[in-house]
Amino acid sequence: MAGEFDLIDWIRSNQATSPLISTGIGDDLAVLNWPTNDLLLVGVDQVIDAVHFDSSVHSPEQIGRKAMNRNLSDCAAMGCLPAAAVVAVALPKTASIEYAKRLYVGLREAGDAFECPIVGGDTATWGGKLVIGVTILGRSGGIRPVTRGGARPGDEIYVTGPLGGSVLGRHLTFEPPVALGRKLAGAATSMIDLSDGLSRDLAQICRASGVGAVIEAQRVPIHPDAVELSRRDGVTALDHALNDGEDYELLLTGPAGIGGAIRVGRITREPGIYLMENGAMRPLEPRGWEHELGR
Amino acid sequence: MAGEFDLIDWIRSNQATSPLISTGIGDDLAVLNWPTNDLLLVGVDQVIDAVHFDSSVHSPEQIGRKAMNRNLSDCAAMGCLPAAAVVAVALPKTASIEYAKRLYVGLREAGDAFECPIVGGDTATWGGKLVIGVTILGRSGGIRPVTRGGARPGDEIYVTGPLGGSVLGRHLTFEPPVALGRKLAGAATSMIDLSDGLSRDLAQICRASGVGAVIEAQRVPIHPDAVELSRRDGVTALDHALNDGEDYELLLTGPAGIGGAIRVGRITREPGIYLMENGAMRPLEPRGWEHELGR
Repeated sequence: MAGEFDLIDWIRSNQATSPLISTGIGDDLAVLNWPTNDLLLVGVDQVIDAVHFDSSVHSPEQIGRKAMNRNLSDCAAMGCLPAAAVVAVALPKTASIEYAKRLYVGLREAGDAFECPIVGGDTATWGGKLVIGVTILGRSGGIRPVTRGGARPGDEIYVTGPLGGSVLGRHLTFEPPVALGRKLAGAATSMIDLSDGLSRDLAQICRASGVGAVIEAQRVPIHPDAVELSRRDGVTALDHALNDGEDYELLLTGPAGIGGAIRVGRITREPGIYLMENGAMRPLEPRGWEHELGR
Repeated sequence: MAGEFDLIDWIRSNQATSPLISTGIGDDLAVLNWPTNDLLLVGVDQVIDAVHFDSSVHSPEQIGRKAMNRNLSDCAAMGCLPAAAVVAVALPKTASIEYAKRLYVGLREAGDAFECPIVGGDTATWGGKLVIGVTILGRSGGIRPVTRGGARPGDEIYVTGPLGGSVLGRHLTFEPPVALGRKLAGAATSMIDLSDGLSRDLAQICRASGVGAVIEAQRVPIHPDAVELSRRDGVTALDHALNDGEDYELLLTGPAGIGGAIRVGRITREPGIYLMENGAMRPLEPRGWEHELGR
């Protein structure tokens, strides 16, 4: 009978090593030698069947990679170095041990690319669909973490790549911009990863920083996927670029002249977020991804 | 419309403080000032509807408390101090924001009892049932973490309280024995929390330590709940004490004379785990809780 023990043995035998790890997978908790003087960054992000992926279409390796990469993207947004991860998997009872291993391969390969070993986890089977929660630990590694709260009036607003239409595939295949995040962290006054869409993620920066913003429509870099999606659904490519989620590019603010990023607007003292298009200003409502809760 | 923003605002306004927290809930990642010289312990444990609780019976506060306390129990088993937690919640679409808040109250109250603030999280709504994953960070705080791998032949085996029948209610109401775990850590050669049942958790210690064990049946402390359950289902109270999961007492090994714990057997050089009952030895099969994976 294939059980959790077998899976843990297999995972342990495939565990990446790190000078950080004192006790790895298989005890009540992992034990890490945290580097002196390094701040510890920590957060958790889930991927859920029929919300963030479709288990009837996407391979377990793809799903595992996305689960890890979403969290590595958070490291990029803070300018920190990924250090270790722990993974909780709620697995359908019908899943095979082979399926669980393939999920783990995807998770591990994504982590290995950034020297981020999986040091612990919890696998449970149940009557529901697949849910994966990855908790990531990052370390400051000599760079002050960049929060959402530091944008100042007069700062320029930048993104690191073309936006929109990620649902056509990029939401699964993106590479978390960890090195770029660290490079930008030196100049950025605030930074966030574009997981919920530009209009919504910019609203997060403005709320946290107590500022407003103006986005210049003609500067927003539009991904070919946004154009393709526009052709299919009639929503403009610009709207896709402004509101689609899961770009996993970085959105940041800072002084003029930051290299390696595309300027799209400016932070204002006055609250409110506006879109300047053809010389006219209109409010830019946050229309990206939000999980709605009933009353 | 009630959304994730409202919930995060509410959670942030209810966040416990800690000298550890540099940036708390609401950014891409939390930032913690990790104490110099403290080892970092980390692990994740889930609670899942219809597996670890029943959302049609148990209150959200009870469910939240259990989710946190399972992880605090892991801290107890390592002899470490809880430091911080992050929480991933996959919430049914039908749940109200009030329900989500009550879950959080349960999580937070359980953490607060051990100065363990929730510093980050991820809430998503979906078409499935409730899944909560809690990742706990612990710090060594001057005590060497106790793993499962240090049991030596000749060590005595101890448990910290009566076992069995937790399904009658204790699986929800247990208090994680954090202070006791730290007290025992000085003498224990190995330690684990009894989440999967004595027979199975002892097997974990024996595997990790490369040893065997003999449990003396008449020494196993039997909880009144195990007796009550035996009356209902005809399984002996001893079998309930040996095999039921979710006692959340500690199982440890060490020299003779450890105070505050009940001696139940001895570690042997020979592999295999045996039960000595009425002068006869028989193999003690690990029969506790194991999530089974299909082939």
